[in-house]
Amino acid sequence: MPKKYVDLETLKYILYDIHKLEDLLTRERFKEHDLESLDLFIDSVKEFSDRELYPYFKEMDETPAYHKDGTVIVHKQVQKVMEQAGEMGIISASFDYEAGGLQIPFTALQAAVYVMDAANNHLPGYAGLTSGAAELIIEFGNKKLNETYVPKMLSGHWGGTMCLTEPQAGSSLSDIVTKATPTEEGYYKITGQKIFISGGDNQFSENIVHLVLARIEGAPNGTKGISLFVVPKNRPKQDGTLEYNDLMTIADFQKMGQRGYCTTHLGFGDTDDCRGWLVGEEHKGLNQMFLMMNGARIAVGRGAAAIAMAAYRTSLQYANERPQGRKLTSTGKKNPSEKQSLIIEHPDVRRMLLLQKSIVEGSLSLVLLASKYQDIVTAATSKEEKEKYHLLLEMIIPIVKTYPSEAGAESVDNGLQVLGGYGFCTDFSLQQYYRDIRISSLYEGTTGIQSQDLLGRKVPMQNGKALELLIAEIMQTITLASKDDELKKYGAVLADKLKLSQKVLGHLIPFAMKGNYERYLADANLFMEYMSIVVLGWLWLEMAVNAKNELGNSNRKYSETFYESKIHTTRFYFKYEVPKTNSLAESLMSDEILIIKNDKEYII
Amino acid sequence: MPKKYVDLETLKYILYDIHKLEDLLTRERFKEHDLESLDLFIDSVKEFSDRELYPYFKEMDETPAYHKDGTVIVHKQVQKVMEQAGEMGIISASFDYEAGGLQIPFTALQAAVYVMDAANNHLPGYAGLTSGAAELIIEFGNKKLNETYVPKMLSGHWGGTMCLTEPQAGSSLSDIVTKATPTEEGYYKITGQKIFISGGDNQFSENIVHLVLARIEGAPNGTKGISLFVVPKNRPKQDGTLEYNDLMTIADFQKMGQRGYCTTHLGFGDTDDCRGWLVGEEHKGLNQMFLMMNGARIAVGRGAAAIAMAAYRTSLQYANERPQGRKLTSTGKKNPSEKQSLIIEHPDVRRMLLLQKSIVEGSLSLVLLASKYQDIVTAATSKEEKEKYHLLLEMIIPIVKTYPSEAGAESVDNGLQVLGGYGFCTDFSLQQYYRDIRISSLYEGTTGIQSQDLLGRKVPMQNGKALELLIAEIMQTITLASKDDELKKYGAVLADKLKLSQKVLGHLIPFAMKGNYERYLADANLFMEYMSIVVLGWLWLEMAVNAKNELGNSNRKYSETFYESKIHTTRFYFKYEVPKTNSLAESLMSDEILIIKNDKEYII
Repeated sequence: MPKKYVDLETLKYILYDIHKLEDLLTRERFKEHDLESLDLFIDSVKEFSDRELYPYFKEMDETPAYHKDGTVIVHKQVQKVMEQAGEMGIISASFDYEAGGLQIPFTALQAAVYVMDAANNHLPGYAGLTSGAAELIIEFGNKKLNETYVPKMLSGHWGGTMCLTEPQAGSSLSDIVTKATPTEEGYYKITGQKIFISGGDNQFSENIVHLVLARIEGAPNGTKGISLFVVPKNRPKQDGTLEYNDLMTIADFQKMGQRGYCTTHLGFGDTDDCRGWLVGEEHKGLNQMFLMMNGARIAVGRGAAAIAMAAYRTSLQYANERPQGRKLTSTGKKNPSEKQSLIIEHPDVRRMLLLQKSIVEGSLSLVLLASKYQDIVTAATSKEEKEKYHLLLEMIIPIVKTYPSEAGAESVDNGLQVLGGYGFCTDFSLQQYYRDIRISSLYEGTTGIQSQDLLGRKVPMQNGKALELLIAEIMQTITLASKDDELKKYGAVLADKLKLSQKVLGHLIPFAMKGNYERYLADANLFMEYMSIVVLGWLWLEMAVNAKNELGNSNRKYSETFYESKIHTTRFYFKYEVPKTNSLAESLMSDEILIIKNDKEYII
Repeated sequence: MPKKYVDLETLKYILYDIHKLEDLLTRERFKEHDLESLDLFIDSVKEFSDRELYPYFKEMDETPAYHKDGTVIVHKQVQKVMEQAGEMGIISASFDYEAGGLQIPFTALQAAVYVMDAANNHLPGYAGLTSGAAELIIEFGNKKLNETYVPKMLSGHWGGTMCLTEPQAGSSLSDIVTKATPTEEGYYKITGQKIFISGGDNQFSENIVHLVLARIEGAPNGTKGISLFVVPKNRPKQDGTLEYNDLMTIADFQKMGQRGYCTTHLGFGDTDDCRGWLVGEEHKGLNQMFLMMNGARIAVGRGAAAIAMAAYRTSLQYANERPQGRKLTSTGKKNPSEKQSLIIEHPDVRRMLLLQKSIVEGSLSLVLLASKYQDIVTAATSKEEKEKYHLLLEMIIPIVKTYPSEAGAESVDNGLQVLGGYGFCTDFSLQQYYRDIRISSLYEGTTGIQSQDLLGRKVPMQNGKALELLIAEIMQTITLASKDDELKKYGAVLADKLKLSQKVLGHLIPFAMKGNYERYLADANLFMEYMSIVVLGWLWLEMAVNAKNELGNSNRKYSETFYESKIHTTRFYFKYEVPKTNSLAESLMSDEILIIKNDKEYII
């Protein structure tokens, strides 16, 4: 097993030097924190992950969560990690002081939890969803709900979930039918079923607090008739003791990967005695849920980025240790009497490693960028700034969910390939990373859904304002790059890609204007891929600009090799990945309509 | 579970109408066969697969092969299928009559075994490797070896394997150290270890006949000092009984997929009593093994193509049955009071299905093309024809191994995505296909090795003659396409891509001429991807030309929709896949050298 599942140096570099955590700390909200204390926080989470997460990574795959006697049996570390996440303040770290939080920048918290994800992606979700559920209660729930549920959740004693999906309503939330019937006692009676509920039950937690989307009787059709409820597994009575809330754990889905992170099927109100309490306003449930969903989407991207990181570090270590084959001589043959080379010396292996590095570290930068936007939205004191970063955040959310998931899976695939046949064997962890990461493109809105969100909602937002703001951010980096003899060429390429994206949109938008939304959105996935490459190109250029500057700085923090490696990976990304935008643009601007159903059914 | 794991109509269309099996039957070698009997053969293999393979697909994943008491315990169907494959003549189908075969065209046999692969990819390898091992003995072994081993192998009573890989020698065969020491009795004493031996042992077979690469004491270094041996698990004595040949099954590798197809670790000569018999000439072992390896490489491509087919059919059926979401109205919203659509009506799902179809059916055409070349090589009576098709076969071998494996994995990935969250659940077979197919890019020479073979050996072959021949074949189809008003544009695109490939080679070849082979081959994987897309574009254009013709034919064999679907998929391939060649060419012709190790180590 590899010693390092995460490159902490690069993590801190991106957090401190690229996304400049220090700048956030000048804000009122974060004034109690300094870099040293946050650095200690991250180190303590790393130490915790070394001790309580990483050693159980394989074991949790081999002994998956399962349904038994109406509950879900999970690995014992679920309890351990929930408790410690409560004690260490991880669950509530970024919450307001008055809500029991530490007002730690969300960005720093994401960096810390990223380490946990890389150590063992089966565990952090339990605490993460608890945090998200608590956040919803804090933000929209009344005082009573807050007092009853939040403290137990933040301490890790009670779990939390979000319950959206139903058997007939997965991507299509407007079809939710779980019913909420008002009673005179103020609570609602909940009946229905929810599936794919991550962290939905376990044998350790005294209680699980579900945040449930349901439809109040008589509510309008569609997403505008969905409300949000707190529905605990066990309801607290007046005296503080708990009684069963008629909420049955029906099954636990068995999965290809992330098998230690349970995925339950819940039944509400089998004997018509399941009580739920409305959170916020009637019929506003979906909008409220989006508060949690933005965080959850960043979390999915963060988890995928972290799995890809762990896989990259593992394959890198293997490549540095495994001798196999030899360099070609000047006659194109190999000299068998020569000692074998380490496989890291073969160009094809280097290509696979650099591809991984570019995806892995680029994804990390993307996750911390989105987190920074979120922090600024929270901490901003001017309305203009809040609005600006809100739009940037909205723009980047579908990308931060999707790129680390899709490219991350490709990255792990390359990591597996580096190990050759061993990569396919269960004695090596690559195959587990390969299986685990595959969930990322599915849950929390599939890649298809995210792509529709990007092109269908985010691009047109406020007449294109969100995209405009993003482009302005990218242009700033291009301007900086233009001052460097080497980097200016990459800046110019990136500027071209931005122009080409405008051309693509110029081709597509008229379809939307004519009301042909189906045509407008048909190739949204390709547009997502296009924009993701542009954003990643930007983030790499940003790193290269910083690295070039630091190379000229005699007081630089990291080694020359460290900075050179960032510049080199930028070159790699612009040589091997950025050109893909051309093919994507060609497909996007083709006039042939091939994937919209017409009268004839050609897929047989 | 889906009713159809294979589209038999398309299989037969490609076999009979595209690759024109009938033309092969005019040759002397195949004159005893007619289309009707071969069609019956394929149908009987389909019926056999329905009965004995498909029902055990999930079970074999859930109860993987494992090592116990010095042997490997495999699923009972291994025995059943080996026996029946013997009885039905599948193991020896394409062998000469005098070798106990049926002289069935290899192409027809591959079509039949493809059906078995699609039904359950864990099983056909046992018979396939036995066939390959027997073929080596028939081709290069003496009369005694033939009499002793071949009949029992062809009847399915004894298994066969190929033993190449050793712990220190995977991709690098020149580093094989397994030792063969001559004795006065004529046999050799074999000592060493082999790993990753597919079908290496099982509790049912009376005997396993290993074809082993080993080095005779004092042999030259490298691949030129490797010889080939028959090394049975149990050696036949004079009286026909068997005695243990000091060949130990040390372990069975546990894998992420294809878990029912065992992968063993063998130890030869632990007590210095393991006997091997030389096959053919000393030191010619690797060349001889290549006879089997070409077949094995086609088989890997075939297996991957078949897994992707089964996954495609499964996701297609799901998409035709699962309602979810709605079409967008002219205001870009959905109308929640409308009934949900089937997901096959969503453009993104159609894109994923058409992508699968283009990869799956294109791969099938590629596999049968390679098989046809092989048949012509075997059946050709003129030296010129034999030489021509030998070169075409050599050219296509690395592509037929690689494209179905790499693109097939992408295809299955899209199939899984079509099912949404269910795709990740073990109740659905997509996740198994996803795991199973991943081995294809690894065994029988990784994608990296195949790419080096393509660019490093096949392109330069006879001064570019093999590539020239392939281009000439493609040009014939382009000429046919030029007569059709719609297809001529795709023909023109394909001709451009051929020109661009020449430009890419014009950029690369000077490096080889200057002796810088490392630079020449550094991006071989990208060149492989480029050429694969060109070849697949060709095969689709070929199908479209045929389909267009048949649409004008009142006696056409298949429905209008069937032919339209082939033309439509061709359009799809040219819109979404062919443009990728531009990005690949851009990367291939970039002057930046980023993946060759230099003095500085930038990957950290």
